[in-house]
Amino acid sequence: MLKMNKQIILKSRPEGKPSLKNFEIQEIDNAQNGEIILETKFISVDPYLRGRMRDEKSYIEPFEVGKPLESMVVSEVTDSSNEDFKKGDHVIGMLDWKKQQSHSGKDLRKIDPSIAPLSAYLGVLGLTGLTAYLALDKIGKLEKGETLLVSGAAGAVGSVVGQIGKIKGCHVVGIAGSDEKIDHIQGKFGFDAGINYKTTQNMKKAISEACPDGVDVYFDNVGGEILDAALQNINKAARIINCGAISIYNETEVPTGPRSEGILIKKSALMQGFLVRDHIEDYQKAISDLAGWLKSGELKYDETVVEGFDQTPQAFIDIFDGKNLGKMVVKA
Amino acid sequence: MLKMNKQIILKSRPEGKPSLKNFEIQEIDNAQNGEIILETKFISVDPYLRGRMRDEKSYIEPFEVGKPLESMVVSEVTDSSNEDFKKGDHVIGMLDWKKQQSHSGKDLRKIDPSIAPLSAYLGVLGLTGLTAYLALDKIGKLEKGETLLVSGAAGAVGSVVGQIGKIKGCHVVGIAGSDEKIDHIQGKFGFDAGINYKTTQNMKKAISEACPDGVDVYFDNVGGEILDAALQNINKAARIINCGAISIYNETEVPTGPRSEGILIKKSALMQGFLVRDHIEDYQKAISDLAGWLKSGELKYDETVVEGFDQTPQAFIDIFDGKNLGKMVVKA
Repeated sequence: MLKMNKQIILKSRPEGKPSLKNFEIQEIDNAQNGEIILETKFISVDPYLRGRMRDEKSYIEPFEVGKPLESMVVSEVTDSSNEDFKKGDHVIGMLDWKKQQSHSGKDLRKIDPSIAPLSAYLGVLGLTGLTAYLALDKIGKLEKGETLLVSGAAGAVGSVVGQIGKIKGCHVVGIAGSDEKIDHIQGKFGFDAGINYKTTQNMKKAISEACPDGVDVYFDNVGGEILDAALQNINKAARIINCGAISIYNETEVPTGPRSEGILIKKSALMQGFLVRDHIEDYQKAISDLAGWLKSGELKYDETVVEGFDQTPQAFIDIFDGKNLGKMVVKA
Repeated sequence: MLKMNKQIILKSRPEGKPSLKNFEIQEIDNAQNGEIILETKFISVDPYLRGRMRDEKSYIEPFEVGKPLESMVVSEVTDSSNEDFKKGDHVIGMLDWKKQQSHSGKDLRKIDPSIAPLSAYLGVLGLTGLTAYLALDKIGKLEKGETLLVSGAAGAVGSVVGQIGKIKGCHVVGIAGSDEKIDHIQGKFGFDAGINYKTTQNMKKAISEACPDGVDVYFDNVGGEILDAALQNINKAARIINCGAISIYNETEVPTGPRSEGILIKKSALMQGFLVRDHIEDYQKAISDLAGWLKSGELKYDETVVEGFDQTPQAFIDIFDGKNLGKMVVKA
């Protein structure tokens, strides 16, 4: 039988920034045995995959050298003996980087291309959109008229956070790292105001000016000094969502900063860490709301689509040079 | 008419530690006009009153020089034209330091001496007991079998926190500042273990040993380095109640310490400030439960009762020398 199928394996573990030599594209046999045969449509490439390329155990197993990589993938069912899936269905799941693969159906989720483009299920209807929606729902508990501040505002999570804030009737202020990003979140995503932290001397004052009624909810994707400045502007009963702390991820020692317990007591405020995987039981409701807002045009998103299965390693590498705007996906 | 009544006024604002010269006891006319005439039974003396002696606005007005001081007081109604209160009723409220006073009835609350001794309404059934109960109820959300760690464990709040933890079926560990206090919380209040932070070199390790299953709820009365050590031992989805931060109250600059956002994200944990005054609508339910546990003997408390209305200033001063065990009250 002809080898018509392909897979991408981890050839070697990267040191520092990944490069093409860490990957190998191999021709393999077509998938034949298995309850379900899947044909890959879109592959998600994400920064967190870099962590799995290290030989270190985390909340998820590391990739093995010589074995195919995996990530969230949207596929079409081309054959099925599983009664839950039929030919022509579209599904999403944690799948191998293969053009074609067999599957048991376990943990595969059907998706509806009539609701949103297939690639959206890897971004705004995937983990980034779910993170924005569920963290606001579980911790933020936005009330109409409140002020929502979000850092990493031009990112895949932050841009959805801000738009949900507007849908809920809040005053929404975003923090990002360039004037272009600030223009973009105000122009495309409808933020009320933006702060370029790279050109702002006094973040405490800038937040105070952009949030004249104080901050009720701070959605933090960065941690560190921007979190400190936000804390100095919170209102009574404020909610701080600790979703990411990219500013301190690369530190080897736990960094120090102003203690937060004093302000939390004074303001009866809360800070809470959020991990979307803790809330799988709420995914369907969240996707349904997000999809509704997409259809109505209230929710927009950025996406960078790279064409061609073989381009997957390069697309992954390009994330680290910021060549993507919004979610980076590969069209296989 | 004879002057049979007395009041205690703020004669001058203390500098540093208060002394008797800051107070004056004056003879005044008996109360005659007013809907309700009240006779003082017990006066609460509390550290926070020191703050009101400063000429600074906080969440509560400062005392005025030349005017009577006030605090939580338990009184008996000796005359009443208000249909809500009748002669012989016992009430609690924020009242002047007077042996006898008239009152409109506004914000007075009736209390039942058949449920608990009158003085208990100033402590275990007052703000300290309410703080313990409501912070655990609103933020702690203890589950049977979880581990509860509490600092300031021998204090009026901490001792109630630990006992509620035992009532809820938790493993309870207390942190306090002397071996006598550790013996006391284990002997009288039923804590499972105690840590004397003054004689412990490595608090992280000591907490880890006393809490072999990790910390699910940390009730923090102190802040600072003990909070840091507790955070290093928290479990997934832990709740940290920021009730007090006595270790940093006297600092003039915001002190620094290890950043907490990383651990909060990693553990999906929350830290929340708690102020009992935010939950007045829940006082009655809390007092009812606390009173039930008092009656059943499941809840015990320490109390230091000083005899004599005129001793109120000295009793207040003695708090700052730690001459009280548990709640300090004056029997008028």
